[in-house]
Amino acid sequence: MELAHIITERVAGVTATAKAALHEPLFEGNELTYVKDCIESGWVSSVGQYVDRFERDLAQYTGCARAVLVNNGTSGLQIALELVGVGHDDEVLVPALSFVATANAVRHCGAWPHFVDSEYATMGMCGPSLLAYLDEIAELRGESCINKRTGRRIAAIVPMHTFGHPVDMPAIMAVADRFRIPVVEDAAESLGSTLDGRHTGNFGRCAVLSFNGNKIVTTGGGGAIMTNDIDLATRAKHLTTTAKLPHRWAFYHDEVGYNFRMPNLNAALGCAQLERLESFIARKRQLTLRYQAAFDGVAGVRLFVERPQTRANYWLQTLTLDSDAAGQRDAILAATNDAHQMTRPVWELLSTLPMYRTCQSMETPVARDLSQRIINLPSSPQLVQGTR
Amino acid sequence: MELAHIITERVAGVTATAKAALHEPLFEGNELTYVKDCIESGWVSSVGQYVDRFERDLAQYTGCARAVLVNNGTSGLQIALELVGVGHDDEVLVPALSFVATANAVRHCGAWPHFVDSEYATMGMCGPSLLAYLDEIAELRGESCINKRTGRRIAAIVPMHTFGHPVDMPAIMAVADRFRIPVVEDAAESLGSTLDGRHTGNFGRCAVLSFNGNKIVTTGGGGAIMTNDIDLATRAKHLTTTAKLPHRWAFYHDEVGYNFRMPNLNAALGCAQLERLESFIARKRQLTLRYQAAFDGVAGVRLFVERPQTRANYWLQTLTLDSDAAGQRDAILAATNDAHQMTRPVWELLSTLPMYRTCQSMETPVARDLSQRIINLPSSPQLVQGTR
Repeated sequence: MELAHIITERVAGVTATAKAALHEPLFEGNELTYVKDCIESGWVSSVGQYVDRFERDLAQYTGCARAVLVNNGTSGLQIALELVGVGHDDEVLVPALSFVATANAVRHCGAWPHFVDSEYATMGMCGPSLLAYLDEIAELRGESCINKRTGRRIAAIVPMHTFGHPVDMPAIMAVADRFRIPVVEDAAESLGSTLDGRHTGNFGRCAVLSFNGNKIVTTGGGGAIMTNDIDLATRAKHLTTTAKLPHRWAFYHDEVGYNFRMPNLNAALGCAQLERLESFIARKRQLTLRYQAAFDGVAGVRLFVERPQTRANYWLQTLTLDSDAAGQRDAILAATNDAHQMTRPVWELLSTLPMYRTCQSMETPVARDLSQRIINLPSSPQLVQGTR
Repeated sequence: MELAHIITERVAGVTATAKAALHEPLFEGNELTYVKDCIESGWVSSVGQYVDRFERDLAQYTGCARAVLVNNGTSGLQIALELVGVGHDDEVLVPALSFVATANAVRHCGAWPHFVDSEYATMGMCGPSLLAYLDEIAELRGESCINKRTGRRIAAIVPMHTFGHPVDMPAIMAVADRFRIPVVEDAAESLGSTLDGRHTGNFGRCAVLSFNGNKIVTTGGGGAIMTNDIDLATRAKHLTTTAKLPHRWAFYHDEVGYNFRMPNLNAALGCAQLERLESFIARKRQLTLRYQAAFDGVAGVRLFVERPQTRANYWLQTLTLDSDAAGQRDAILAATNDAHQMTRPVWELLSTLPMYRTCQSMETPVARDLSQRIINLPSSPQLVQGTR
């Protein structure tokens, strides 16, 4: 039997449903209760008790000192970059293998993405490759790291925790320290994922979460800036809420601010979802075991599992094709989607998209190779029976 | 009796409540039903039937060909400006008397706000003053209007319909035509307001609505780009949804896009609110009559009422102090707020805020005068008994 058909059969066996989405949200807790409370109280907009509570709950859950809610992960990244000092015409090191938002947020700051290769162990940014590359192209001038080829400042590094698998942050932080570059973690996909017992987002200067509809926890649309730097959090709140100075009635804004607030209505959904997060992760871990069993003995494919010392949230289940099976990727995608078992490839390499093709990039053989061999499988928590 | 006390007494008499907010949302229709439907169906995020429906409903209500939902008015303005051609280092003519978002959106495009005076009749941008000013400082070079003083291109005009009172758009359009500058209407406050029978937003190339929590219709946070230009609408949809090309599974984005979508959850609220809009406007018009009666014969103050040939939505009720009463503004604000009758002044002139102080500006005597004499009064629709 062809690999595409074997995979389709095995996936359908695991999902045990005629139509499996890639990732659907699950509302089985207090979602409606909290949202109803917003509507009945009239507090649906940019201030409200659920905004305050969701910020407290996220800080407590992740162990970060502060969370600042924003209206999505992209706007959170933009503000985080601005707050660590990224300015017009700077360069920001981002993974070539990421969702387009990682690079867009850099452009929204007026800076330029500069692409970094992945490592096989995490799919994320490779510390050793980055170190060797910066040794070649960068130099410290005072406190600034300068790209000798472009003359531009390299103002931030943005590792991204792919599908909830933590990047090797100690390796990235060592590079960042050596070249004095601040780190912003793109933790859009890794709420619930830990490394050496610490929640992702606690390694860099700050981090950004996403609560888009396809994420492990959703607010419809939304995100959060996470940090252990209280001043940075205070600045983030000010900048994202139009930079208005508090006053009983006067409208005085002291800098160019943004309207990046998360409405209370959406935060209410987030509070209820976060209450269920550990249950979602438990189910996703079960799902991983089922997929592992289903693909055991299928030649040419391997399920991506968490590294030692990490806990992955297994946001999206990830199948990696062996090199000699990579040519069958599109046939597998077609067969599974035709059978209503929704799968998808990983993103096109950002460095190949038309608007980023001329940006700086190191050689990205690993990212390129991975981009041809990864398939995400149906991953919704409801595919596994939960315990309340 | 002091004016501050008289006004406090009269306002409390009209609101007939011990605690009147400036503007609270009113959810008395299908809000909970539609939001519940989102949660029960799982469709809370950036695609969904309420997104499509709210866009259709808004287009139908306003008579614009197309509406594109966005996550707030500021992001809507940013995209609208980008789509009419505003680029880095251009100048954009905006009213000095507006909420800070009008100018911030210009900066978010990398362009510079250039401030314009108001006229007393509308509080909004003054066509004749702008014409005289441009005759002095601007010249056409090819198809571009250039500010002779700065050498920069003047790339857009953004009139704003203050508190729901339509700007004299024919006067503004005549200036815009003469200098070949595209017009983007900031209709954040004017949903339901018409001029010569046409809904605001139909005069410029495009317009932007806001559904923030304090607006006449709310989605928690949100906005819409309105236009009669189908190509512009299509571009707006593409740009605000990460510029992704449609494909069964591939992630291919063909330009630097934005994550400015309105979630389905918020659009559901919008659909229900829009069903009630005409009822809200009817109540607000009643409220205007009550305030008029209450202030009839009070020396030194006058309620702002709609001009001939316009219908105002009366989003915020507006009291104008006579010049010789302007010195009592802060005493009036303090007395009314102390009595829990929430009032507020109009915004600080944008041209006086620290980040905009060095921007270009014409003389703004009218805007300055109005900024010292305007007080907004409690304006919630629930202050008047409604009919279902």
